[in-house]
Amino acid sequence: MKTSNRISEQVVKRLPRYYRCLKAFEAEGKERVCSEEISRRMQVTASQVRQDFTHFGSCGMQGYGYDVHLLKERVSAMLGLTRAYHVIVVGGGNVGRSICNYQGFFREGFFVQAVFDLFPESVEVRPGVKVLDDAALEEYLAGHDVDIAVIAVEAEAAQAMADRLVVNGVRAIWNFAPLNLEVPEGVAVENVFMSDSLFVLAYRFNEALKEENLPQWGENQPSQTHPV
Amino acid sequence: MKTSNRISEQVVKRLPRYYRCLKAFEAEGKERVCSEEISRRMQVTASQVRQDFTHFGSCGMQGYGYDVHLLKERVSAMLGLTRAYHVIVVGGGNVGRSICNYQGFFREGFFVQAVFDLFPESVEVRPGVKVLDDAALEEYLAGHDVDIAVIAVEAEAAQAMADRLVVNGVRAIWNFAPLNLEVPEGVAVENVFMSDSLFVLAYRFNEALKEENLPQWGENQPSQTHPV
Repeated sequence: MKTSNRISEQVVKRLPRYYRCLKAFEAEGKERVCSEEISRRMQVTASQVRQDFTHFGSCGMQGYGYDVHLLKERVSAMLGLTRAYHVIVVGGGNVGRSICNYQGFFREGFFVQAVFDLFPESVEVRPGVKVLDDAALEEYLAGHDVDIAVIAVEAEAAQAMADRLVVNGVRAIWNFAPLNLEVPEGVAVENVFMSDSLFVLAYRFNEALKEENLPQWGENQPSQTHPV
Repeated sequence: MKTSNRISEQVVKRLPRYYRCLKAFEAEGKERVCSEEISRRMQVTASQVRQDFTHFGSCGMQGYGYDVHLLKERVSAMLGLTRAYHVIVVGGGNVGRSICNYQGFFREGFFVQAVFDLFPESVEVRPGVKVLDDAALEEYLAGHDVDIAVIAVEAEAAQAMADRLVVNGVRAIWNFAPLNLEVPEGVAVENVFMSDSLFVLAYRFNEALKEENLPQWGENQPSQTHPV
């Protein structure tokens, strides 16, 4: 049964965290880890770790721990980090340029080959990334096997850009515009809504302030009048 | 009971998504929405939406829907977006400069006042953001009520930077370095691990490829030999 090998959404989302965690253990020179150590580092329960690891194949023995390197390689293979990706960026603003210039991505096999902008003459990126006019996008997509397109244009232009990309064969979009794109089935989209985490930080910051000022607790808290 | 008003981690993480969703409805001119519409847009069950909304106070009536504007204001107040934040950025590389220049943050009340770098002369940002030498950080923190510090330095320098910030009174850190920072209790940290979402995208892209090439299904799938 094909679907029985499918891992759940929740596990998929934890894969990059396991990958980061295992890379850190490797960098620290650790060869074997137990589920409790991974659990502490990742703030996931040890039983969850053990359950997740059943998807990764046998990488350890009871009481002996997991082989850090082997487990990292397995997670890397599951994520698809064992191949190279042809990546393009649309939008050469601050975000687009950051992605073109960030070395961490091409160390993992994501090669940004070109960035497209309405004003290419104003876009400066590292050598090796072509800066092309927005109007050349269709021709580029026709001539290259692009794996991933990064949308780094304004919110207003993002859906139309997604449509252009999809019509021209792009199947994976990494979206930095602050809206949910509509794409046909079979096209993968991952969003980076950076503000979300800033807002959560603001929430936690204010909660901590309230903890210190107990008499103020409940101010501006509409749920006070509507107990749950 | 103080803690009874505490909303769970899961609800906190959904707050920014509700906020985005409600802003979108408002922008579309919608005055009232029902939980089913929010559910569809956010890919959360309608009963989850209704349950979450019990924390937001009364904003609607059975069969009549919720008041979009009122609900958005409530979520905004819960997140703490009704005040201004003094924000500084440490590290004036691509990520640091993006954050200094992104207008979306100060539209929501997050005012980046200064960016610190070891080589301030090489950092160009929008007018209104001071570019200061890294060595001036302590003096700046002593003289200003900084609410949020953004860490945009290299991974190797991030923990030491977090320590400097915390010792000098910073209570909220927005971390872009790819590692988990250790901070004392009472200091809020939110991480933006951008690669995580890129890796999930790679996973989904490869899954979609496999769907198209069924005979290849199972290649490089260690879990095949270890059924769950």
